[in-house]
Amino acid sequence: MNDDKKLKEHLKNVNQFKISDEYDIVKLINDLKDTGFNAKRLAIACEIYKEMVEDKECIKFFGLAGALVPAGMQGIIHDFIEKDFIDVLVTTGANLTHDLAETLGYHHLQGDVKIDTLDDARLLDEEMNRIYDVFLPNNVYEGIEDFMKELKIPDETMPVSDFLKFLGEQLPDNSNSILKICASKDIPIICPAFTDSGLALQLGFNHQKVNLNHFKDMLKMVDLAWDAKKAGVCVIGGGVPKNFIMQSLQFCPNSASYAIQITMDRPEPGGLSGATLQEAISWGKVNQNAKYSTVISDATIALPLILWYLKKSL
Amino acid sequence: MNDDKKLKEHLKNVNQFKISDEYDIVKLINDLKDTGFNAKRLAIACEIYKEMVEDKECIKFFGLAGALVPAGMQGIIHDFIEKDFIDVLVTTGANLTHDLAETLGYHHLQGDVKIDTLDDARLLDEEMNRIYDVFLPNNVYEGIEDFMKELKIPDETMPVSDFLKFLGEQLPDNSNSILKICASKDIPIICPAFTDSGLALQLGFNHQKVNLNHFKDMLKMVDLAWDAKKAGVCVIGGGVPKNFIMQSLQFCPNSASYAIQITMDRPEPGGLSGATLQEAISWGKVNQNAKYSTVISDATIALPLILWYLKKSL
Amino acid sequence: MNDDKKLKEHLKNVNQFKISDEYDIVKLINDLKDTGFNAKRLAIACEIYKEMVEDKECIKFFGLAGALVPAGMQGIIHDFIEKDFIDVLVTTGANLTHDLAETLGYHHLQGDVKIDTLDDARLLDEEMNRIYDVFLPNNVYEGIEDFMKELKIPDETMPVSDFLKFLGEQLPDNSNSILKICASKDIPIICPAFTDSGLALQLGFNHQKVNLNHFKDMLKMVDLAWDAKKAGVCVIGGGVPKNFIMQSLQFCPNSASYAIQITMDRPEPGGLSGATLQEAISWGKVNQNAKYSTVISDATIALPLILWYLKKSL
Amino acid sequence: MNDDKKLKEHLKNVNQFKISDEYDIVKLINDLKDTGFNAKRLAIACEIYKEMVEDKECIKFFGLAGALVPAGMQGIIHDFIEKDFIDVLVTTGANLTHDLAETLGYHHLQGDVKIDTLDDARLLDEEMNRIYDVFLPNNVYEGIEDFMKELKIPDETMPVSDFLKFLGEQLPDNSNSILKICASKDIPIICPAFTDSGLALQLGFNHQKVNLNHFKDMLKMVDLAWDAKKAGVCVIGGGVPKNFIMQSLQFCPNSASYAIQITMDRPEPGGLSGATLQEAISWGKVNQNAKYSTVISDATIALPLILWYLKKSL
Repeated sequence: MNDDKKLKEHLKNVNQFKISDEYDIVKLINDLKDTGFNAKRLAIACEIYKEMVEDKECIKFFGLAGALVPAGMQGIIHDFIEKDFIDVLVTTGANLTHDLAETLGYHHLQGDVKIDTLDDARLLDEEMNRIYDVFLPNNVYEGIEDFMKELKIPDETMPVSDFLKFLGEQLPDNSNSILKICASKDIPIICPAFTDSGLALQLGFNHQKVNLNHFKDMLKMVDLAWDAKKAGVCVIGGGVPKNFIMQSLQFCPNSASYAIQITMDRPEPGGLSGATLQEAISWGKVNQNAKYSTVISDATIALPLILWYLKKSL
Repeated sequence: MNDDKKLKEHLKNVNQFKISDEYDIVKLINDLKDTGFNAKRLAIACEIYKEMVEDKECIKFFGLAGALVPAGMQGIIHDFIEKDFIDVLVTTGANLTHDLAETLGYHHLQGDVKIDTLDDARLLDEEMNRIYDVFLPNNVYEGIEDFMKELKIPDETMPVSDFLKFLGEQLPDNSNSILKICASKDIPIICPAFTDSGLALQLGFNHQKVNLNHFKDMLKMVDLAWDAKKAGVCVIGGGVPKNFIMQSLQFCPNSASYAIQITMDRPEPGGLSGATLQEAISWGKVNQNAKYSTVISDATIALPLILWYLKKSL
Repeated sequence: MNDDKKLKEHLKNVNQFKISDEYDIVKLINDLKDTGFNAKRLAIACEIYKEMVEDKECIKFFGLAGALVPAGMQGIIHDFIEKDFIDVLVTTGANLTHDLAETLGYHHLQGDVKIDTLDDARLLDEEMNRIYDVFLPNNVYEGIEDFMKELKIPDETMPVSDFLKFLGEQLPDNSNSILKICASKDIPIICPAFTDSGLALQLGFNHQKVNLNHFKDMLKMVDLAWDAKKAGVCVIGGGVPKNFIMQSLQFCPNSASYAIQITMDRPEPGGLSGATLQEAISWGKVNQNAKYSTVISDATIALPLILWYLKKSL
Repeated sequence: MNDDKKLKEHLKNVNQFKISDEYDIVKLINDLKDTGFNAKRLAIACEIYKEMVEDKECIKFFGLAGALVPAGMQGIIHDFIEKDFIDVLVTTGANLTHDLAETLGYHHLQGDVKIDTLDDARLLDEEMNRIYDVFLPNNVYEGIEDFMKELKIPDETMPVSDFLKFLGEQLPDNSNSILKICASKDIPIICPAFTDSGLALQLGFNHQKVNLNHFKDMLKMVDLAWDAKKAGVCVIGGGVPKNFIMQSLQFCPNSASYAIQITMDRPEPGGLSGATLQEAISWGKVNQNAKYSTVISDATIALPLILWYLKKSL
């Protein structure tokens, strides 16, 4: 805001919009843009993402935390990658474990169940692991173990991201698999806390000599940021993926020019997950002239809307 | 959940859905229904609302708290009423004040402004009141005062809801006005904390003898619930509107058969705003066999989606 | 912050404090003051409250929402009043209903119960109403009804606050009762959404002609603010009590000089409950030079600490 | 809860407690135990922690996420370790980086600054990195770099935890240092996402051949859990530390017997950070007969209270 102009010169009427009979996602997002609160922030996030995709110089870092695959978002994330909306994926070991499970033909389960009164001790008896209102049977982990046991690891000290590409290559074709589409398109998957996952446990149990290199991925991320003419970041849910992208962006000559985060975390407790994108400017992670938007929303609602908007408007 | 069946017999695969080229809001909601987390809860809320509208015996109570009109949701709420999706509206004085302002031709303002660094002392100088990222110039209140001053109150001890109907009747035609559409369609507006509003302040300043009756509205609500063959409730944002509907539903012979809440509040701090709908069963507010869903979401995102779904699917 | 000085000139080292063997609440709060996040905000809230009490010209408005009496905070609030830490109490009908119940000798109940798996349908059968992890048996409401039935209302159109004083006078002596201590000390209790309560329901059912005046309380609050040389506000949990105090403070010549809020609500959804105290400056509710602090904390943790600090340090 | 007894047989009166003149932390916690909401949960967490310390067979896993050291909690965490309240520390690279900075004589900064209107672009100019309301000057990272450059790494493929012990041994004596006290007492520090930190960046930049082993730490944690006769867990703030402890506890023969979490995260978005401890029962991470408590609170408020209670009551 220019200090010499009055605030009202920057303002226009709130859009008291209507949902017409011939409505579509692009109209919705355009309408929401001139409203307020998180509706407006979501609309701005959509616009920024679109601009980020259209900016051919921009390297798009995507941070993914939270149990998105169990919640049915595997195909959505797959399509973000297939459509070239992601250049570098930074995620948790858990999402990769869940992606592997689905790709191998196992399934997360859900149904018409009241979780308010579910007895978890009974679920333990039924060998049914709970992820809020989604369930994963124990035998899925046995399937993963069988698969991991058979893997012929080409190099026990390869970078984690190289291993994940190798892993993707071993997988059957699958129209939803994140590991597979990243391997095919050579999109790096960076997983800084890889050992914090069922996938890594099975790898470690069955291949005791592995010491996949985490440091090379750390330096690779710094190089990716360093070499980016422009950088953009979309963060889902905070955690290590957010911090890892942000620490790398400090080495990007111009910091991030575009920044989006979709999260339920908030700034007041001081953790990085909920930190504002504004704060990231002080660190040189986000450029002071960047376009940015934080949407306080469950990603399972916001992410499909963003993809739908991008597919329709690009 | 039937105790004799295993959990897995209640379950099916999580839907790893895709956004096809010919996608629409009904497909989205249908897809989200078999996912997890708040996406699933939103889909279930949509389905319940649809069923509630189709159930001709059901009286639909709608509780509206939060600054929804400033955030551009006036037309959305107007259309919920116009489309007969609401039978009784319980809301805050603030939303009515903001509705009156827009109906009289004033506007809430928004724009490309970074609120992270806005200096509110400067806004005070510019006579610009802030509601998060929406702004309301002081002179709007002067316009409301002029209007209220001229009102000829027919009865100083009339129930608040009768006054609000009278107020709606005095207003010009307007395709977004909540007060106007409720007056035309004879949908009661119940405002239990009416004096907690700019509208009531202007009424009180300019009509010193008014003592609008709050108790008759309280008893009217109990009667409405008492007489309802079936009852449904949709609560946006908690607060007095939620509690007031819920206390009335205790007198509904079958309690609520349908219940939806869209809120960012959570149960752990113990306040009624964030209380689960499950908890309301213990009070006899919600029936133990009711269909219910709580969506943890900003209403500015969820409400337009629900309306869009209802318009397309009904 | 003075724009001509660098930030670091305003800063000093974070206090990496220790809990010594001879520790007390005053040392804790003093130590927390030079830390960060909500610990610091809590310490500043304590200091502001202390200064507010020491400032003899300051009228202290206290807004109380949330089920604080059910959660065991009745004696704490009672002592805030007894110790002259509150000049005007604005609260919900629910807290007064719960206060009345305890004062008449009934009790809220709690115990070693896992609420994660409680079946609320069973509680309904056992006539046990649930407030998160606290329980209120139905028969308490019968006791309230018996009491209310016998009341001889002196004036059916008296202001709500006068009625609440009258009510307090009818109650037996009780070392925890909020209604009683307010009546004895002539501390006004303002309850703008009075009809949104079990207490008002019993009043209305048994005294069909009552039309207690809400508007006179609204104007009384404006007068109290108007006449205040200085004003201070402490808000617990948002809701109508917060908004009602804030709308009145707009008429205070100097706005509030001290402002504290303890809440779990956040600003992003745009509702007044979670709005920052900074935002209130734009409205002229809080003075631009005011001392203020928002603590994101459950009030059941923060409120006893604040009282303990005040009792020890004053 | 035994199904054959009525709920009320499990219940007793809520404790409407008072803060007496001779009050201390043990009385406060004892009083809060019979209240409700987060106050009660905090009291139960204190009791569980005490019991966990008194249980000599119990291995106490402590997960620490969030910027606790910047917020002045370094000495508190140090004393948890010194007093033998922690057997295995699982934390983020950020907390270790901040601990290293303070141990080397640098400081985090704070002061009387309104963060609502801080301009982060100006902080960038002043080379002052912001962590909510705490600040870290850029030159601290230069100091860390100088220190890391000089390190003689004994083994480039040592486990991360061995490296962190080695690092602690190189540090000067310091009454607050977490790295130092863990090294002296041989308490393992497990850091699964070590490369996600300024510390690891400096290590990687200056020692290009390091490939510290993350897998051995993963297996070590499994062994620690496997060998534990009893296990207890206290989690601050979720994230990788929580998940990593939990995945290991699946291999503990009896799962965790005690479990505490202090967090602002909530279960509804489905992420592991906010997941209930109840849910962990379904996975075999927490025993179905475990004592557990989740406190929804900023750790900067809860953690000092817990330490104070433990020091006074043990």
